[in-house]
Amino acid sequence: MNLILLEAAEVALDGAAVLTGPRAQHLREVLRVEQDRQVRVGLVDGPVGAATVVDAHDGDRVRLRCHFEAATPPRPAVDLVLALPRPKVLRRLWAQLSALGLGRIVLTNAERVERPYFDTHVLSPEVYRPLLIEGLQQVRDTRVPVVTVHRRFRVLVEDELDGLAGASMRLLAHVGGPQIRVSEALADRATPRVLLAVGPEGGWNNFEVRLLVAHGFRTVDMGARTLRTDTACIGLLSLVHDELRRQSDSARCE
Amino acid sequence: MNLILLEAAEVALDGAAVLTGPRAQHLREVLRVEQDRQVRVGLVDGPVGAATVVDAHDGDRVRLRCHFEAATPPRPAVDLVLALPRPKVLRRLWAQLSALGLGRIVLTNAERVERPYFDTHVLSPEVYRPLLIEGLQQVRDTRVPVVTVHRRFRVLVEDELDGLAGASMRLLAHVGGPQIRVSEALADRATPRVLLAVGPEGGWNNFEVRLLVAHGFRTVDMGARTLRTDTACIGLLSLVHDELRRQSDSARCE
Repeated sequence: MNLILLEAAEVALDGAAVLTGPRAQHLREVLRVEQDRQVRVGLVDGPVGAATVVDAHDGDRVRLRCHFEAATPPRPAVDLVLALPRPKVLRRLWAQLSALGLGRIVLTNAERVERPYFDTHVLSPEVYRPLLIEGLQQVRDTRVPVVTVHRRFRVLVEDELDGLAGASMRLLAHVGGPQIRVSEALADRATPRVLLAVGPEGGWNNFEVRLLVAHGFRTVDMGARTLRTDTACIGLLSLVHDELRRQSDSARCE
Repeated sequence: MNLILLEAAEVALDGAAVLTGPRAQHLREVLRVEQDRQVRVGLVDGPVGAATVVDAHDGDRVRLRCHFEAATPPRPAVDLVLALPRPKVLRRLWAQLSALGLGRIVLTNAERVERPYFDTHVLSPEVYRPLLIEGLQQVRDTRVPVVTVHRRFRVLVEDELDGLAGASMRLLAHVGGPQIRVSEALADRATPRVLLAVGPEGGWNNFEVRLLVAHGFRTVDMGARTLRTDTACIGLLSLVHDELRRQSDSARCE
């Protein structure tokens, strides 16, 4: 936990905040804070800042006085369409996805998604929101990805995706298409955002690939190896962010 | 399982092989093979090939007749030095590491590695070898990464590493160094192999960074976000393999 995230409602107008539970425990037992120690804090979907420990041992509470910066970090410029993985895999992915940096996570049905996956509690905000926040606290970000769940793939692609992720360069992870690397596909990017679609174990079916391509997605792959969904997600998002970083560095140098 | 891996001792001179256990179960229950069906097979550390199902229902056995190609796939050109992660994380990583493609996995101590991590059964070949093979079967590779465990970091770096991974371009994952992207660091690569070092949660300490840099490692990072070890491993290995692929594609076009 490299940053303690607080909900806006937890912070009084003068910056006073009282923590209990895992965050208080982390401050006392891992960071071993005492009075007057400074710790990094952030407001969920707001700015980062610093907090001074006012009292580390008020029962099970830790009292802080927070000072936040003026600006909120920008929303990550990458969004993900992900065919719903099995619950065990999704549970492990949440924190990794928010850590890598996503504006939006669009979970969708696909032929090779099993129906019971939609009934899992791993899809309820009470379960995934703390995991998303755990990932953000790891990487010192505050922007919680917006999560939506779509049971109808075709309706999503044809009717909803433009509203969710309008002006994005669209990439489709697909082994067996033309072999294009992520950075090649993004080289002539004209949009500020990137939308990456990752299929289920076993891949998208032909109809799904055709529909996505018809709606502006360009296929990319990571070479001949067909990785597991979770490994592919992390690898592809790393490649997308690396290329955005390269483009941003090179724009700065021009 | 996109490839069934067999040990050399399981295949008779005429290509006959008898499977039991999880592989036989996978053939019957997931692939639903019947007699005369072809399946992809491979020999551990040997060639890939095809097998014809001779008998799918010989009790709990599946009988195959295998034909292997002449050439063995090349060993992946990337090796990993990894500060020993906690057992739960390492257990999840094994299959992902072999799937991404590694010639060698060098597990090492570091200041921020907890001693009990070395006593876990996740470090015994009986546990990790099936997981490495699981990852290879996912991506249709046959080359099992060579695993070694080193309790003395300094001895490893000063005395053993040249023997383990001699002529390699050496990269050190380190947030807080000069901000170099993986592909930048590899751009002037003059060696066929790459050796990537990934530290423990909490990072390498200053002594460790200095020792690695003194032994030829160049620092790289994935931007300002300090990812968890497992996420960083997968992301960085994806970036390394992507750059090697770009260089190999561009050499082919010249």
